[in-house]
Amino acid sequence: MSKREKCPADSLIVMREMVMPNHTNPQNTIFGGVVMSWIDIAAAMCAAKHAEKPVVTVHVDDIDFKAPIKVGCHVIISASLNYVGRTSMIVGVKVESENPYTGKRRQTTKAYLTFVALDEDGVPVEVPSLSPQTDEEKRRFENAKKRVEAKKALMKSLE
Amino acid sequence: MSKREKCPADSLIVMREMVMPNHTNPQNTIFGGVVMSWIDIAAAMCAAKHAEKPVVTVHVDDIDFKAPIKVGCHVIISASLNYVGRTSMIVGVKVESENPYTGKRRQTTKAYLTFVALDEDGVPVEVPSLSPQTDEEKRRFENAKKRVEAKKALMKSLE
Amino acid sequence: MSKREKCPADSLIVMREMVMPNHTNPQNTIFGGVVMSWIDIAAAMCAAKHAEKPVVTVHVDDIDFKAPIKVGCHVIISASLNYVGRTSMIVGVKVESENPYTGKRRQTTKAYLTFVALDEDGVPVEVPSLSPQTDEEKRRFENAKKRVEAKKALMKSLE
Amino acid sequence: MSKREKCPADSLIVMREMVMPNHTNPQNTIFGGVVMSWIDIAAAMCAAKHAEKPVVTVHVDDIDFKAPIKVGCHVIISASLNYVGRTSMIVGVKVESENPYTGKRRQTTKAYLTFVALDEDGVPVEVPSLSPQTDEEKRRFENAKKRVEAKKALMKSLE
Amino acid sequence: MSKREKCPADSLIVMREMVMPNHTNPQNTIFGGVVMSWIDIAAAMCAAKHAEKPVVTVHVDDIDFKAPIKVGCHVIISASLNYVGRTSMIVGVKVESENPYTGKRRQTTKAYLTFVALDEDGVPVEVPSLSPQTDEEKRRFENAKKRVEAKKALMKSLE
Amino acid sequence: MSKREKCPADSLIVMREMVMPNHTNPQNTIFGGVVMSWIDIAAAMCAAKHAEKPVVTVHVDDIDFKAPIKVGCHVIISASLNYVGRTSMIVGVKVESENPYTGKRRQTTKAYLTFVALDEDGVPVEVPSLSPQTDEEKRRFENAKKRVEAKKALMKSLE
Repeated sequence: MSKREKCPADSLIVMREMVMPNHTNPQNTIFGGVVMSWIDIAAAMCAAKHAEKPVVTVHVDDIDFKAPIKVGCHVIISASLNYVGRTSMIVGVKVESENPYTGKRRQTTKAYLTFVALDEDGVPVEVPSLSPQTDEEKRRFENAKKRVEAKKALMKSLE
Repeated sequence: MSKREKCPADSLIVMREMVMPNHTNPQNTIFGGVVMSWIDIAAAMCAAKHAEKPVVTVHVDDIDFKAPIKVGCHVIISASLNYVGRTSMIVGVKVESENPYTGKRRQTTKAYLTFVALDEDGVPVEVPSLSPQTDEEKRRFENAKKRVEAKKALMKSLE
Repeated sequence: MSKREKCPADSLIVMREMVMPNHTNPQNTIFGGVVMSWIDIAAAMCAAKHAEKPVVTVHVDDIDFKAPIKVGCHVIISASLNYVGRTSMIVGVKVESENPYTGKRRQTTKAYLTFVALDEDGVPVEVPSLSPQTDEEKRRFENAKKRVEAKKALMKSLE
Repeated sequence: MSKREKCPADSLIVMREMVMPNHTNPQNTIFGGVVMSWIDIAAAMCAAKHAEKPVVTVHVDDIDFKAPIKVGCHVIISASLNYVGRTSMIVGVKVESENPYTGKRRQTTKAYLTFVALDEDGVPVEVPSLSPQTDEEKRRFENAKKRVEAKKALMKSLE
Repeated sequence: MSKREKCPADSLIVMREMVMPNHTNPQNTIFGGVVMSWIDIAAAMCAAKHAEKPVVTVHVDDIDFKAPIKVGCHVIISASLNYVGRTSMIVGVKVESENPYTGKRRQTTKAYLTFVALDEDGVPVEVPSLSPQTDEEKRRFENAKKRVEAKKALMKSLE
Repeated sequence: MSKREKCPADSLIVMREMVMPNHTNPQNTIFGGVVMSWIDIAAAMCAAKHAEKPVVTVHVDDIDFKAPIKVGCHVIISASLNYVGRTSMIVGVKVESENPYTGKRRQTTKAYLTFVALDEDGVPVEVPSLSPQTDEEKRRFENAKKRVEAKKALMKSLE
């Protein structure tokens, strides 16, 4: 029986949040831990939709904090599947802040997270393969493979 | 100079959340206060986008809790502008739960919230008018007017 | 066997809270979602005392936010049973802010919530009937019936 | 000009809470830190009402945890002024759990907290004196003095 | 079989926290309830390490709040076993704030907490005895005994 | 004037936490966002101690989640400075879970975070250089350089 195949669009997730005072750090902008929590939840929802199984985060990579976000700003967290191996899934997440009064958006953070799906006994299971459709999706798929290769090479080089 | 006019689509908001154990009530389903908080935030983001000003909630009406939501479920909160007066805006919010493994959605809650926009001195200001485009948007606009009329009539009848 | 009858005073609930910085919205006054959470809890405690069973919120109506509440203010949330049907209970909630240094109180919010009590299988069960005693309690009982009638009439009129 | 005098009843505070899953410890009963937070807030509200000034906690004494409290239970926190010195106020707090279905109450915790009131510069200020009225209030007043004496004697005896 | 004996150093606990805006009170310094939560957790971790069993807080004594702590400060919470009876353990906790830019530390709070260890049925069980090694540990052991004696004498004297 | 030099030991941070029910995910183990928040706080405290200035997270890399952590477990988060450039600091964080009843520890997570220190105007400022002392510190310093090089090479290779 041939393995199921799904598209990135099938599991695309968009979350939206508003920065409240209890999300802030001592500099009065959003606390990085809150952003990372939102990233983890958005990515986990994306991976679970693709796998149609419970998933666990196994790796988070390359979170770039490009700009702080202020209280009252809207935050848009977009998670889409970049790459899928036999049991692992790599999700790319983009975080943007939006000024609600001007509509102006700005990318503030991005990250790559790896998940595996688990069966009832907590054992990793095979997931549907990913079929990137658009040029952008294909670019992300290739870049994800390069990231995996680069990580492997780095690991070997470390003492 | 003629007043600005905007469409419901210009301020449509979709939030997505995952139910975590710290969102639950003693029955181990989602706590109503958490749902109401998400509804208030989604609706406030919608009203702020329309008004392009800070907004405050003045009224929340007719929140129907149709079904409980379990831990691990995804929650989709959709807020769209139903009606706009001179300074007040009525936002309709629909809450759906989604089983991430089957993709099956179910409407669990709905609500109507009224906001006003404030200037720098905290005084209510005129907001852009609303131009419903689709049949569904026109139906919501008419229903919102009926709700306002019914509330006025009820208020008069109360002792 | 005749059905049990209880008075509003038997299930009256008064909560008191102090507004802390982590309760605030970006305008630095109390976040509406926090007020709604307190309202839901106070009303649920009231309904559970009347029903002597676990209860679930089925409807929240007509929350009026009349005035913001500042950090450091005390908040008094009073919940009392207004009306009881065979299985449903309508609780009226009044929220007041109190300046702790002057003792001056101000009503900031009010709301009406409907609950049902559930048996062990989650099926709605009959609850004790309500016998309003004071003129105020009788007025609330009559008003609650008018609200129910008005809601039914409105529902029919909506497209 | 003679100093103002107030009664314990003038500043009596009763809070009520419901134990939610996010209040629990790993044993699945209420986390002690949550109880202590509620005790601190109730006592601070009581002291602020007496002093009519902002107050700060300077000491907490003799918190007895007599019984755990389960999820879903109601919690009643009662704070009343036991003793007042020139600038310090001792508040006694009693915590009871209530089974909402049987109405049965049980004392679970008690504590004694000392506050001082501060002026605009953060300097402790004189507060109204306390005039205990009932026998119970007089008993608490005398016991509070004995506690203060015993603490002083203990402090001297410690190496 | 002789009873096991352990040293205070075997169960010493040091926690470190950073004061975030959602830890604050209306005076914009750390909320006492947050400090007490950290104290309870640090002391419970210490007692559990000594007892090698689940523990519950039975008593908290003599919490001194000597100085407020500001947002952004680091907080160091040190918990060590002062005294052990047959089934009860007394833990001393010291709280210090640290200015991260100067490294300057200041003691802000201290407290004494009593725990018992429980077996699977929730019954208090005998715990290893405590063998203080250093002069400081011996001093704390003796002082803890004096505190217990003073508390007993006080209890008898109260009406 | 020569630039100041500090050792990794000068800014070593050890946090300890206990997993509470409100830290959990739907699988009832610790939520990844909570772990990432603790990692961010520990690393920020470490960087601030080295820089003696306020710091902001600019990058988080290579978070490995090796094992889940259960409710009731102790968590030890150790953060130490691995590498320092002119204005940037790389902090390595190791997370271990500890069974409090057996004392058995297990590494569950590790991560690398990059911070910059800011002056009063929010402009990145030069920080003291880092002088690794032990073989382990020197190994980490070299590995951090390799990570930076590998990241640069990867960035160039991505489309």
